Amino acid sequence: MIRFENDYAEGAHPRILQRLIDTNEEQSPGYGMDEHCAKAREYIRKACDRENADVHFLVGGTQTNTTVISSILRPHQGAVAAITGHIADHETGAIEATGHKVLTLPSDDGKIKAEQVKELYDAHWNDAAHEHMVQPGLVYISHPTENGTTYSKSELEELSKVCRECDLPLFIDGARLGYGLVSEGSDLSLADLAKLCDVFYIGGTKLGAMFGEAVVIMNDTLKKDFRYMIKQKGGMLAKGRLLGIQFETLFEDGLYYEISQHAVEMALMIREAFVEKGYSLRYDSKTNQQFPILPNEVLSKLDEKYSFSYWGKVDDENSVVRFCTSWATKKENVEMLIEDIRSL
Amino acid sequence: MIRFENDYAEGAHPRILQRLIDTNEEQSPGYGMDEHCAKAREYIRKACDRENADVHFLVGGTQTNTTVISSILRPHQGAVAAITGHIADHETGAIEATGHKVLTLPSDDGKIKAEQVKELYDAHWNDAAHEHMVQPGLVYISHPTENGTTYSKSELEELSKVCRECDLPLFIDGARLGYGLVSEGSDLSLADLAKLCDVFYIGGTKLGAMFGEAVVIMNDTLKKDFRYMIKQKGGMLAKGRLLGIQFETLFEDGLYYEISQHAVEMALMIREAFVEKGYSLRYDSKTNQQFPILPNEVLSKLDEKYSFSYWGKVDDENSVVRFCTSWATKKENVEMLIEDIRSL
Amino acid sequence: MIRFENDYAEGAHPRILQRLIDTNEEQSPGYGMDEHCAKAREYIRKACDRENADVHFLVGGTQTNTTVISSILRPHQGAVAAITGHIADHETGAIEATGHKVLTLPSDDGKIKAEQVKELYDAHWNDAAHEHMVQPGLVYISHPTENGTTYSKSELEELSKVCRECDLPLFIDGARLGYGLVSEGSDLSLADLAKLCDVFYIGGTKLGAMFGEAVVIMNDTLKKDFRYMIKQKGGMLAKGRLLGIQFETLFEDGLYYEISQHAVEMALMIREAFVEKGYSLRYDSKTNQQFPILPNEVLSKLDEKYSFSYWGKVDDENSVVRFCTSWATKKENVEMLIEDIRSL
Amino acid sequence: MIRFENDYAEGAHPRILQRLIDTNEEQSPGYGMDEHCAKAREYIRKACDRENADVHFLVGGTQTNTTVISSILRPHQGAVAAITGHIADHETGAIEATGHKVLTLPSDDGKIKAEQVKELYDAHWNDAAHEHMVQPGLVYISHPTENGTTYSKSELEELSKVCRECDLPLFIDGARLGYGLVSEGSDLSLADLAKLCDVFYIGGTKLGAMFGEAVVIMNDTLKKDFRYMIKQKGGMLAKGRLLGIQFETLFEDGLYYEISQHAVEMALMIREAFVEKGYSLRYDSKTNQQFPILPNEVLSKLDEKYSFSYWGKVDDENSVVRFCTSWATKKENVEMLIEDIRSL
Repeated sequence: MIRFENDYAEGAHPRILQRLIDTNEEQSPGYGMDEHCAKAREYIRKACDRENADVHFLVGGTQTNTTVISSILRPHQGAVAAITGHIADHETGAIEATGHKVLTLPSDDGKIKAEQVKELYDAHWNDAAHEHMVQPGLVYISHPTENGTTYSKSELEELSKVCRECDLPLFIDGARLGYGLVSEGSDLSLADLAKLCDVFYIGGTKLGAMFGEAVVIMNDTLKKDFRYMIKQKGGMLAKGRLLGIQFETLFEDGLYYEISQHAVEMALMIREAFVEKGYSLRYDSKTNQQFPILPNEVLSKLDEKYSFSYWGKVDDENSVVRFCTSWATKKENVEMLIEDIRSL
Repeated sequence: MIRFENDYAEGAHPRILQRLIDTNEEQSPGYGMDEHCAKAREYIRKACDRENADVHFLVGGTQTNTTVISSILRPHQGAVAAITGHIADHETGAIEATGHKVLTLPSDDGKIKAEQVKELYDAHWNDAAHEHMVQPGLVYISHPTENGTTYSKSELEELSKVCRECDLPLFIDGARLGYGLVSEGSDLSLADLAKLCDVFYIGGTKLGAMFGEAVVIMNDTLKKDFRYMIKQKGGMLAKGRLLGIQFETLFEDGLYYEISQHAVEMALMIREAFVEKGYSLRYDSKTNQQFPILPNEVLSKLDEKYSFSYWGKVDDENSVVRFCTSWATKKENVEMLIEDIRSL
Repeated sequence: MIRFENDYAEGAHPRILQRLIDTNEEQSPGYGMDEHCAKAREYIRKACDRENADVHFLVGGTQTNTTVISSILRPHQGAVAAITGHIADHETGAIEATGHKVLTLPSDDGKIKAEQVKELYDAHWNDAAHEHMVQPGLVYISHPTENGTTYSKSELEELSKVCRECDLPLFIDGARLGYGLVSEGSDLSLADLAKLCDVFYIGGTKLGAMFGEAVVIMNDTLKKDFRYMIKQKGGMLAKGRLLGIQFETLFEDGLYYEISQHAVEMALMIREAFVEKGYSLRYDSKTNQQFPILPNEVLSKLDEKYSFSYWGKVDDENSVVRFCTSWATKKENVEMLIEDIRSL
Repeated sequence: MIRFENDYAEGAHPRILQRLIDTNEEQSPGYGMDEHCAKAREYIRKACDRENADVHFLVGGTQTNTTVISSILRPHQGAVAAITGHIADHETGAIEATGHKVLTLPSDDGKIKAEQVKELYDAHWNDAAHEHMVQPGLVYISHPTENGTTYSKSELEELSKVCRECDLPLFIDGARLGYGLVSEGSDLSLADLAKLCDVFYIGGTKLGAMFGEAVVIMNDTLKKDFRYMIKQKGGMLAKGRLLGIQFETLFEDGLYYEISQHAVEMALMIREAFVEKGYSLRYDSKTNQQFPILPNEVLSKLDEKYSFSYWGKVDDENSVVRFCTSWATKKENVEMLIEDIRSL
């Protein structure tokens, strides 16, 4: 069975693993106060071209979303998100568990538009009874989205502009950030993100690390006491240097982009094979997740040899499925899959 | 600088690291549904001599305490703990952040007594205004405690008996469990714990793993839906097999006990050196943490060569400090330290 | 200005006020432990034809919804409600503030159907990733709904059946319960509610009391420790007898129904006037709230003499508005309004 | 049975009741937006000699404490309070239910000292591991305290000074504020409170109102969005004018002080009778609560005719009890009690 079902099926990228081996006997202080974390922070600040960024390392995505969001909002505020956003329906109500509603916006492809945010904001404040409703307190987007789609620079600029006008911090969930940054036609860099949003994170778990997400806080008012939040929400790893070592490796000489690039190339090959065969795609993804709409009998055939994720029913005869790639995706496996698609 | 300041200064025990290397390219399903986790669960059930135990793997201690405690309590209930308990003052209010008070009992050595629990319980229910107070909802103890002390089997039996009479689930924080199980004079086994408490965890982070804690749920009513809780509280690792692999290694042939044994032996050598030199110990610890009371000028001398933790002031001239050992503590370093103590 | 904008514009029904005057100098124990509360509980149990009902008095609706819902759910569970439900968007996220998501179902008229609940329940449990989502934990409905509509007995029986099959407690928000019970064609009694749901409340604030809601708990497992919840959520009135006195008065000889009857009669007169004039109604309400769709210039005319609530835009020329009646609505005012409608 | 057990045994002061009667048929907007609330706010601002005070009306004390405290603190912060403080042990963990620890300071008489706050603050920030602990986020005191004791102006000034130095908002629970303001030797006015603290409340429930507490917010940064908090925490009364009417009556011409004065006079008569008879007092209260230490056989005798509260055991033969007075305490009853004390 060859697995395309997700981007976290293997361990760590070999270079990360090697670094963990090399440093294993080092003694270092706990909780992220070690030199590897310091180094990793420096590399990330440089990659973002912002010396004043605060960088923190957490273990996983749900934890990161919860910690960041609950640190920003006051009790009566909610997080604005696409209805497809990870915090809206795939984190077991983690945001609500910290006391905050997720205020959802309709979305077909996982993205939200600046106008939607403005409308929701105006609707709230124009309602005479606004104090009886949850006040929008921040905007959460994913880049790439859960559907593999990405924001263009101009789209992000518009969102950022509206957020600043409305005094709504903008938070970008970058669980798969690398795949977005290197995707075909992407005009967004880390430095752009650092400029346009208030806080974002650089996903490691799905990009070659064993685990780990690097939170980058740009907005000064959000920096205060963030380490308390990490500890309270259970994200402060005792052996914090494990996170530092991994992000150090990812960012010291471009491994993060290299990994991203490989996965996206593999994904686009798969995409092309499906398109050439005449199948349509549910979302126009240029990143490491591909969502072809396939007849159910095709699924049964592919199923024998490949694992992938069921995404949803289209009609009685067709379904959307997801194929994922990662650093670990082997080109020969992709070629075999393509061969099999062609001969369907 | 030779570090005795904590038990999480290095990476992973070499055999665990090796296993992570060996399995790195394997593909497996996420979130703890893989075969390594299944294997590790089986080993732990066997070690506990209880086939019906539910075993779950989480990343760290604060996260584990929060997840377990918040899954048990109803909104008006609190967790009874020693005032020195980790949840009472070293987790940034993580328990309160889930809505629950920590009801503290006085303790000099980190342990609490069955009678104290009974008294608190009676005091609550005998108070006419009890509905105006937080109801005790579970009892939390650490074994070994934060001060290195341990419960005897008869002490734990008494606690267990009172807890069952009072309908208070008993939860044991085993962040350093191995060190307690192998400590000199200990008459408690994993099977005893499984019999006497409702839920406990087996610490990995401080016992040779990179990270990871194995929660063992014995009480059937507490088993329901626990995986939702792990996800919501941010503890469900995407690459869950990393946890499985580590606990598999720790429990397949006794590595857990071997690691514990080594650390405790090293700690007792240090203890003896201090005692022989005429220094007294703040707590009577037979485990991997030792708490000598030392004159401040002695601290200054040791400080030049060794790192250890400051624990508290005794008087103007003396302080309590903590020396920790672990799997990684080298015998030659301990011998050097002993030499230095003798020649103080 | 004659007010039809809500059903809480005046103080208390004269008979309730009189009783408060009569009892003012009595001395009684606090927190609902007095004889008036005892009497009121007895009357309500009788009205529900259920001796085993637990009856508690709280101050207001948001408080009651929050207290009941947070007392039932475990941390990973949410409350299923119509998207128009009061808890979904008019309580400033009070449910989320206790850690729980509101799982919304589409609804045009404020009601939800048994099939919708079943579908949501099945969708949750059939999803392989259900542990990553909020688990439905109870069903919340309002009767009458926020739109004035009501459930028939057979509709409620179906809902109740599905809820019991799915092990989802059914909670009825009865902020305006009386108006539903006496509404034209209603075949539901308090005894039916007590039989078909697990917990409900009888609204006082909008039905002649100064304030106060009577929670009736039928399900034994939900009864435990409910007074702790009331205290914790700030709903335990020190002078609890004020609540007892009001509900005693409402239920000792049918005042509750009398008040409801009057308001509904007044509302139906208004409804008829609008319908006769050719205006349509946004919701088919037979209760004390009426929602005509009116041309904006008509609103401007009525606005000079009457206050009512703006409910929403239909198109550029028409809007939905709400007219409310209550115990305090004077027949002469209604007749004047009708006259004015006719001569529009 | 003559009741001295608490200060909320009766309904409302006759003048308040009369005003509720007089205004009963008035129609007004809901949720505190009416003219009575506006008037009451104006009177209170004047009484505080501060035009820029924000004044809000809530229903009860626990609700008020919870709403104020949770509106101020960030997630990792706690409320510093005396161990005897109402929030620390008589509100069923309401503060913890909003996610925040109560950081308790020892106190024999219910008061805390400026030095204690400074020490706790310094201890927190000087601890290298402070991020692992709850950060002090505000200081809560009661005036008078739960034990009837009061702060002098210089004591409050010192507390205020330390709080400002430490950037800790100071919140005064004034559930019985009037009794403190008029107490013998008190040199504190409402204007002083408004100057020295950031937010406080003026208790109505225990001072002649049916119910109601008036929150006065002085610190501009704490004013923002407070009405959302009231709504979310269930304290926004639909018929908000009931609160306005009561506080209007209390503050338009000094009724609040008059009521307080009467109760304190009655309490001091009782105090003197006990002292003359040779009994000692547990707390040196000059307010409406008195805490004599009485032999148990004396309690049995008084018990036949009077109700009072049991406060705690002193030794096998003596107990502390509490006698309370209020607006409703009749002088003839106090005289009878005094007679009975004298003839013990």
